[in-house]
Amino acid sequence: MSENIGIVEAFIEAWNKYDLDTVEAMVTPDIFYHNIPMEPCIGHAAFKGFVRSFHASSANWVIHAVAANGPLVLTERTDEFGFADGSKMSIRVMGIFEIQDGKISKWRDYFDPAEANPIPKS
Amino acid sequence: MSENIGIVEAFIEAWNKYDLDTVEAMVTPDIFYHNIPMEPCIGHAAFKGFVRSFHASSANWVIHAVAANGPLVLTERTDEFGFADGSKMSIRVMGIFEIQDGKISKWRDYFDPAEANPIPKS
Repeated sequence: MSENIGIVEAFIEAWNKYDLDTVEAMVTPDIFYHNIPMEPCIGHAAFKGFVRSFHASSANWVIHAVAANGPLVLTERTDEFGFADGSKMSIRVMGIFEIQDGKISKWRDYFDPAEANPIPKS
Repeated sequence: MSENIGIVEAFIEAWNKYDLDTVEAMVTPDIFYHNIPMEPCIGHAAFKGFVRSFHASSANWVIHAVAANGPLVLTERTDEFGFADGSKMSIRVMGIFEIQDGKISKWRDYFDPAEANPIPKS
């Protein structure tokens, strides 16, 4: 298995523990993070601000497919977030990561923003 | 280079020639084609119906990144379509292809459907 795939898997494990300190430590200072339907976050401070803005309390991201080509790791995932009130949000997404010196320097996620709404508790 | 990457590149070349006969010949009879924000097309007749419904006259799809893992080929692309009136539509997309016996049996594309609108000629 590509070492870079292992880095992305560890990054998603950190999300799934909702260990945001580790998430933030795994990206480069000049991280370029782009949720394609939104404006990109450039640099560590912007990344951290975005990550802390979710107000989620848990995550369960499932990798359906992953492949690497040199420094690039491409994924197909379902990203589920849980919130303190018991609601959940589930987004079908493909994302690409670029690894530089063992850290994530670029990350772009492609999805339909209409899915990025919490699921009512019913 | 993975042989399966070559199949996906040839498929996109067929799109870029707007050779829809070749596009249709490169997928399996039970093709499962899913533009994630829309309903999936299942089977060759549904696929063909969808492909012929675009009313585009040209395509210019650019592969920014590609990686394979066994039968799976993951891509990051910009898909541009041109129309007879001179307008264009450009969609940022990631897509995953599954190859079976040299043909595409599954294809899922992830994008923001808000981008799937023709660009005014200005």
